[in-house]
Amino acid sequence: DFQNALTEVRPAFGATLENFEQALSGGFIDYGLPVTHLLQSSHLFVQQLSNSTRSNLMTVLLQGPSKTGKTATAIKMAKESGFPFIKLVSPEKYVGFSEQSKVLSIQKVFDDAYRSSLSIIVIDDIELLLEYVPIGPRFSNSVLQCLKVLLKTPPPKGRKLMVIGTASRQDVLDSLELTESFTSVLTVPALADEDSIKRVMLETSLFTPETAQECARLAVIAAGPNGIGIKRLLMVCEMAKTEEKVTPQAFQECLRLV
Amino acid sequence: DFQNALTEVRPAFGATLENFEQALSGGFIDYGLPVTHLLQSSHLFVQQLSNSTRSNLMTVLLQGPSKTGKTATAIKMAKESGFPFIKLVSPEKYVGFSEQSKVLSIQKVFDDAYRSSLSIIVIDDIELLLEYVPIGPRFSNSVLQCLKVLLKTPPPKGRKLMVIGTASRQDVLDSLELTESFTSVLTVPALADEDSIKRVMLETSLFTPETAQECARLAVIAAGPNGIGIKRLLMVCEMAKTEEKVTPQAFQECLRLV
Amino acid sequence: DFQNALTEVRPAFGATLENFEQALSGGFIDYGLPVTHLLQSSHLFVQQLSNSTRSNLMTVLLQGPSKTGKTATAIKMAKESGFPFIKLVSPEKYVGFSEQSKVLSIQKVFDDAYRSSLSIIVIDDIELLLEYVPIGPRFSNSVLQCLKVLLKTPPPKGRKLMVIGTASRQDVLDSLELTESFTSVLTVPALADEDSIKRVMLETSLFTPETAQECARLAVIAAGPNGIGIKRLLMVCEMAKTEEKVTPQAFQECLRLV
Amino acid sequence: DFQNALTEVRPAFGATLENFEQALSGGFIDYGLPVTHLLQSSHLFVQQLSNSTRSNLMTVLLQGPSKTGKTATAIKMAKESGFPFIKLVSPEKYVGFSEQSKVLSIQKVFDDAYRSSLSIIVIDDIELLLEYVPIGPRFSNSVLQCLKVLLKTPPPKGRKLMVIGTASRQDVLDSLELTESFTSVLTVPALADEDSIKRVMLETSLFTPETAQECARLAVIAAGPNGIGIKRLLMVCEMAKTEEKVTPQAFQECLRLV
Amino acid sequence: DFQNALTEVRPAFGATLENFEQALSGGFIDYGLPVTHLLQSSHLFVQQLSNSTRSNLMTVLLQGPSKTGKTATAIKMAKESGFPFIKLVSPEKYVGFSEQSKVLSIQKVFDDAYRSSLSIIVIDDIELLLEYVPIGPRFSNSVLQCLKVLLKTPPPKGRKLMVIGTASRQDVLDSLELTESFTSVLTVPALADEDSIKRVMLETSLFTPETAQECARLAVIAAGPNGIGIKRLLMVCEMAKTEEKVTPQAFQECLRLV
Amino acid sequence: DFQNALTEVRPAFGATLENFEQALSGGFIDYGLPVTHLLQSSHLFVQQLSNSTRSNLMTVLLQGPSKTGKTATAIKMAKESGFPFIKLVSPEKYVGFSEQSKVLSIQKVFDDAYRSSLSIIVIDDIELLLEYVPIGPRFSNSVLQCLKVLLKTPPPKGRKLMVIGTASRQDVLDSLELTESFTSVLTVPALADEDSIKRVMLETSLFTPETAQECARLAVIAAGPNGIGIKRLLMVCEMAKTEEKVTPQAFQECLRLV
Ligand SMILES: Nc1ncnc2c1ncn2[C@@H]1O[C@H](COP(=O)(O)OP(=O)(O)OP(=O)(O)O)[C@@H](O)[C@H]1O
Ligand SMILES: Nc1ncnc2c1ncn2[C@@H]1O[C@H](COP(=O)(O)OP(=O)(O)OP(=O)(O)O)[C@@H](O)[C@H]1O
Ligand SMILES: Nc1ncnc2c1ncn2[C@@H]1O[C@H](COP(=O)(O)OP(=O)(O)OP(=O)(O)O)[C@@H](O)[C@H]1O
Ligand SMILES: Nc1ncnc2c1ncn2[C@@H]1O[C@H](COP(=O)(O)OP(=O)(O)OP(=O)(O)O)[C@@H](O)[C@H]1O
Ligand SMILES: Nc1ncnc2c1ncn2[C@@H]1O[C@H](COP(=O)(O)OP(=O)(O)OP(=O)(O)O)[C@@H](O)[C@H]1O
Ligand SMILES: Nc1ncnc2c1ncn2[C@@H]1O[C@H](COP(=O)(O)OP(=O)(O)OP(=O)(O)O)[C@@H](O)[C@H]1O
Ligand SMILES: [Mg+2]
Ligand SMILES: [Mg+2]
Ligand SMILES: [Mg+2]
Ligand SMILES: [Mg+2]
Ligand SMILES: [Mg+2]
Ligand SMILES: [Mg+2]
Repeated sequence: DFQNALTEVRPAFGATLENFEQALSGGFIDYGLPVTHLLQSSHLFVQQLSNSTRSNLMTVLLQGPSKTGKTATAIKMAKESGFPFIKLVSPEKYVGFSEQSKVLSIQKVFDDAYRSSLSIIVIDDIELLLEYVPIGPRFSNSVLQCLKVLLKTPPPKGRKLMVIGTASRQDVLDSLELTESFTSVLTVPALADEDSIKRVMLETSLFTPETAQECARLAVIAAGPNGIGIKRLLMVCEMAKTEEKVTPQAFQECLRLV
Repeated sequence: DFQNALTEVRPAFGATLENFEQALSGGFIDYGLPVTHLLQSSHLFVQQLSNSTRSNLMTVLLQGPSKTGKTATAIKMAKESGFPFIKLVSPEKYVGFSEQSKVLSIQKVFDDAYRSSLSIIVIDDIELLLEYVPIGPRFSNSVLQCLKVLLKTPPPKGRKLMVIGTASRQDVLDSLELTESFTSVLTVPALADEDSIKRVMLETSLFTPETAQECARLAVIAAGPNGIGIKRLLMVCEMAKTEEKVTPQAFQECLRLV
Repeated sequence: DFQNALTEVRPAFGATLENFEQALSGGFIDYGLPVTHLLQSSHLFVQQLSNSTRSNLMTVLLQGPSKTGKTATAIKMAKESGFPFIKLVSPEKYVGFSEQSKVLSIQKVFDDAYRSSLSIIVIDDIELLLEYVPIGPRFSNSVLQCLKVLLKTPPPKGRKLMVIGTASRQDVLDSLELTESFTSVLTVPALADEDSIKRVMLETSLFTPETAQECARLAVIAAGPNGIGIKRLLMVCEMAKTEEKVTPQAFQECLRLV
Repeated sequence: DFQNALTEVRPAFGATLENFEQALSGGFIDYGLPVTHLLQSSHLFVQQLSNSTRSNLMTVLLQGPSKTGKTATAIKMAKESGFPFIKLVSPEKYVGFSEQSKVLSIQKVFDDAYRSSLSIIVIDDIELLLEYVPIGPRFSNSVLQCLKVLLKTPPPKGRKLMVIGTASRQDVLDSLELTESFTSVLTVPALADEDSIKRVMLETSLFTPETAQECARLAVIAAGPNGIGIKRLLMVCEMAKTEEKVTPQAFQECLRLV
Repeated sequence: DFQNALTEVRPAFGATLENFEQALSGGFIDYGLPVTHLLQSSHLFVQQLSNSTRSNLMTVLLQGPSKTGKTATAIKMAKESGFPFIKLVSPEKYVGFSEQSKVLSIQKVFDDAYRSSLSIIVIDDIELLLEYVPIGPRFSNSVLQCLKVLLKTPPPKGRKLMVIGTASRQDVLDSLELTESFTSVLTVPALADEDSIKRVMLETSLFTPETAQECARLAVIAAGPNGIGIKRLLMVCEMAKTEEKVTPQAFQECLRLV
Repeated sequence: DFQNALTEVRPAFGATLENFEQALSGGFIDYGLPVTHLLQSSHLFVQQLSNSTRSNLMTVLLQGPSKTGKTATAIKMAKESGFPFIKLVSPEKYVGFSEQSKVLSIQKVFDDAYRSSLSIIVIDDIELLLEYVPIGPRFSNSVLQCLKVLLKTPPPKGRKLMVIGTASRQDVLDSLELTESFTSVLTVPALADEDSIKRVMLETSLFTPETAQECARLAVIAAGPNGIGIKRLLMVCEMAKTEEKVTPQAFQECLRLV
């Protein structure tokens, strides 16, 4: 029991590292201003939290359309903080859990964090965590209330905690009055201009500069004003490579299929 | 227990083969372009998944009206992939299951697949799996959320997984926001032109070329603009055969009854 | 246990025979065309199922207004098939059952049928089986989904199964999307013409030809355009007999009371 | 166990007699035509059921406004039938029962009745039995479905069963589609004319002929077109008696209070 | 067990006396006509119930706005009856009870009363007992139905029972169709005229005749046409006393705060 | 057991002190009239409760917009009362509790208070305690009813209890009819004028008088007519300090982010 307690107190950094790698399987490409802005804000939060003598809880919501890189950004922020305790709360760990077990499990992650002086908890895909479905609408109120309370509860004296949540349906979080439980809300945008898209393409080394130019043009047209998420863009690129490089024809074909 | 573990790891190809045969009891008839297109797209997905170094999850939804051959097409695609692990998740296996057991059972199929390097999981009749009924509407949110999460979770490093789902009510899947959980959506159409219908009829060897021509004309009229599903067409043909061959009168009679 | 298994496999024809007799307590009167048509269609289905090499499942829905003889017709069809395994799934067997036990019990009937080469399952009073009530509306979705799946699952190779369902509220079955789970839908009509009604009366041997004529006229007027179900008609006749025969006065009185 | 079985088979007439007496605590007053008509119809049903060779189930619904004497009429009918087995299914026996136990308990009453050759079951206050409340509306669907099925299930061969139900909200039973489960529906009316009311008053021996006349006039005015139920009328009379007899002043006062 | 039975039969008068005293902590002030009328009606009910040979159940609902003295009036009526068995059914005894235990516990109070020849049961704060909330609306249907049935069930022969209920939301009880379960409904009004208010004030001995006059005028203005409940009035008086007596300024201040 | 009882009776003042400190982490700044008014009212309630011979329960609701200092004010009031027993009922203690356990746990806090002669219970964040969510709306009716009853139940003779609740959504408490369960309702306002804001800033010693003036102006503009809560204001100040003091630029930047 005592042994047990010891283990629980030790920050579980290593254990969760693998998930982090998978979330960053497409690397972390600096395609322009939005990326810079997100990382700078994050830096500011981390610095303030570290230095503050009064407040010891900081909660940030990363939100943006589907497949725009929210999860990867959250992981990136967490890693760059240099905080020793980082934990990922992610829906795939709770498949088949009862509401009750889910709540207890989430609470345990926070309790673990409260034992470390500097911690970050990433809560990924909040809508899925809440089992939200627009018909009804239905969702787990237990999990919702658990999050609302934990997002408001400061850690014990001497501990600092940063929480980063990700969500793709702002209207849902608003209607659940969960957005206002975060102290800050940052947006992860889709890519809508040729330049950003080309920069992403070139980083994949699947394009020559010329085809990158051409394909970026095609992507902008296909994506329209809403833009294309970086996750989807990388998937199309990957799928369109035939030998080593991508041809505009293959790229256009794959844009339709995926 | 150790023995047990061993068995579970070994791909269960043989066990599910029989279901596959039953789903293809009417053969797989190449009646024209739609068939070609479906098989080609599937081929592309399989190839990309096999070769890709970055992405290791591909999810396709086959959707189309009732009795158009969705299940048979999914099985066909799975068999043609040459992947060694193929599993069929089908509502008839879950009659009388609680939501909880259903979720655990589906999750187990995925866990098994994660142990094989190249796997395909066919999730048949998604509306039935969700116990969807338009009054309410009611459905199993646990199963829905389980699918949403599993369709988003990449298998462990070094494993490749393709998921093929079938569904006949696109509006339902849309309203449940499940369609967008698939990376690709392909349509399995009904037959609406004389030519395709005739080609199916001739393949059954229940028609002379002349009666096929005549009956195809009758079928097109009866089916109207929505067309007739290949499954229903084959059933009418079978029922209309009196001795060995079908007569137009018997065919027309059976079109009304079935 | 082995003994047990043996008993279960043996077709339980005798056991259910008594229910069949009760459902036909009013005999089976051929009052004209609708009766002929129903029995002929049934004959065709049976023949086709017996001879077919490809399809081995046939599902028919008998629907019509209250008390028109749906149950009796279903039993009649089942008995005339000559199939050795006939089972009746009827709501009265499930009073006080939980949804779960009901589903398991229905599934067991099908499993038993799958063990016989030629089987018929009559599912009587589907609305009651579903515990449907228009307020809400409420119904057992578990039982509904169980029926939907079982009506779609073909028996194992080499087995043939015919399912006959009865229901009196087509709109309900439509709204539950259950009608389309049957391959055929046949209607059992109410009696609305003097001639059919008279033929039924004469078969009861409670009427002289003259009173039959007179009472049939009264019944047509009382019944109106919707007609009168054969079950109710037989009940009124029975109730109106004072000594041995029925008088028009007594008949008219009873038409009001029942 | 065998002893047990024996006891259960023996008709439990005596046991329930006390309840019957309480329900008839106000006697059974023949105040005119409605009473005659109700008893005559009941007589006809009993006679028909006893003599019939074909039908062995008769189900009657007594419905009418609150406090009009439905329960007393049902008991009166049951007692006059001369049937040896009479059982009362009444909500007060089920306070604190779960839905499940209620259903099982009701079913047991029917099973007992099936063992007797001539039985009557009175199902009193059906809305209360169903725990119906207009807000929602809410009610026990299990009990409702149990009643629907039992009201349709004929007793075994050689047994005769009459069921008499009472209910005061016809619209409720209609909306639950329970009215149509009865073969006959009879109405127990409120008293709206001076003559009937006076006849009831005189039977109580609390009035002189003159005060009866006067008070009846007052009651008609107070009751209005909807009339006054016999149960309420008897309560007002009882309450208005000061010494031995009632005065019009006291009567009017009590009409206001009760 | 026998000992147990004995104890239960003995009327539990003493045990509940303390609650009664607390409910009358503000005394019972005769401030005018409404008080007289309530006590007279109650007296009539008690007398009639004691003397009647036919009816042995009397049920009265005391209803009126919040804080008008309903609970105190009910207790006063019960105490004045002189009946040896008085029990208080009050929501505070059921905090944390399940619906089921609440129902069983209420039923037990009635069962105890049935063993005494003259009993009174006060059911206080019926909306709270039902856990009624207007959103939904939600409430305990089990408790509601339990009350409906118990309010209709006469005690065994030779026993007399009076039930006094209190409720402040008549619309709620009406919509639940619970009002009509009581044989009588009496209203406990708020104080809206200077005279009654002054009489209450003088009884508290916190006012001189002059300040009473002045403060009563202030109270009438503040209360408006809906009046002020006696419970709230007494609270304001108590709070406004600084030394021994109340000043108009303090009184006005406290009217705003409470 | 007896030991146990003893411990429970002893007021648990020390145990909860730490929570109190955390709630007052930003100190308690007297920024003007609203603060004075709140503390004076509280003083009056405490005095009256202590001296009264008749009433022994006082319930106050502190309500106001998000982050305006409700919790801190409630704690301040409790501490200033000088009452020996102070307990904090706060949602964070109930994460993962079932409704039932929550109710029992709250009830226990009240039972403990009833054993002390002078007690204060602070019920913080009532909406969270009720697990209220506007979609549905859904909330725990058990907890709601428990609060309603406990807020109405006076402690035993000789005990005095003050309850202070906090809530930020008055419309919610109104719609749940919970507001009216409190005898008094006080409002904790947001800061909307330059003067109050400046006074708060100066108390933090993070501003020079000049920057305080400037930043207060900026805050008033950013906050608009709804004002800014003191909790949020203090957070922005803290975040904006770079070295020791705050600059207007940093302040404005942080106003946007938090
Ligand atoms: N600047 C970047 N920001 C975010 N992701 C990037 C960036 N550069 C490259 N990526 C890659 O893009 C992918 C983003 O996928 P990610 O899962 O984070 O998207 P998401 O918005 O969380 O998707 P979903 O809406 O499905 O949850 C990752 O593979 C990541 O490695
Ligand atoms: N090209 C084809 N595509 C699909 N099915 C074919 C084709 N050629 C023949 N078939 C036969 O048609 C039948 C199609 O039935 P299938 O069960 O796949 O339809 P479905 O759309 O899944 O029906 P449902 O909507 O009822 O689930 C099978 O018997 C299959 O063998
Ligand atoms: N041609 C006929 N078709 C059907 N029933 C007949 C026929 N001739 C006689 N009958 C008798 O009529 C009665 C029909 O009752 P049955 O229970 O089948 O009606 P139902 O439509 O199932 O009623 P419900 O709507 O109440 O379920 C039976 O007693 C049956 O013996
Ligand atoms: N002709 C009569 N018909 C019915 N009841 C009568 C008649 N004559 C006297 N009574 C008396 O009138 C009373 C009728 O009460 P009863 O309980 O039957 O009414 P109810 O309609 O069932 O009331 P509720 O609507 O409350 O259930 C009984 O006390 C009964 O003895
Ligand atoms: N004539 C009177 N009638 C009623 N109460 C009186 C009377 N005179 C004095 N009181 C006092 O007034 C108070 C009435 O409070 P009571 O709890 O009965 O009100 P209530 O209407 O039940 O309140 P609530 O709506 O909160 O349940 C008691 O303290 C009682 O002693
Ligand atoms: N006069 C004051 N009134 C209230 N709080 C003050 C005051 N002066 C300083 N503070 C500080 O302001 C902060 C108020 O935060 P508090 O948690 O009480 O706000 P809240 O309204 O309860 O917030 P929430 O709506 O999130 O529950 C505390 O840190 C407290 O120390
Ligand atoms: Mg993501
Ligand atoms: Mg299919
Ligand atoms: Mg039938
Ligand atoms: Mg009755
Ligand atoms: Mg009260
Ligand atoms: Mg707070």
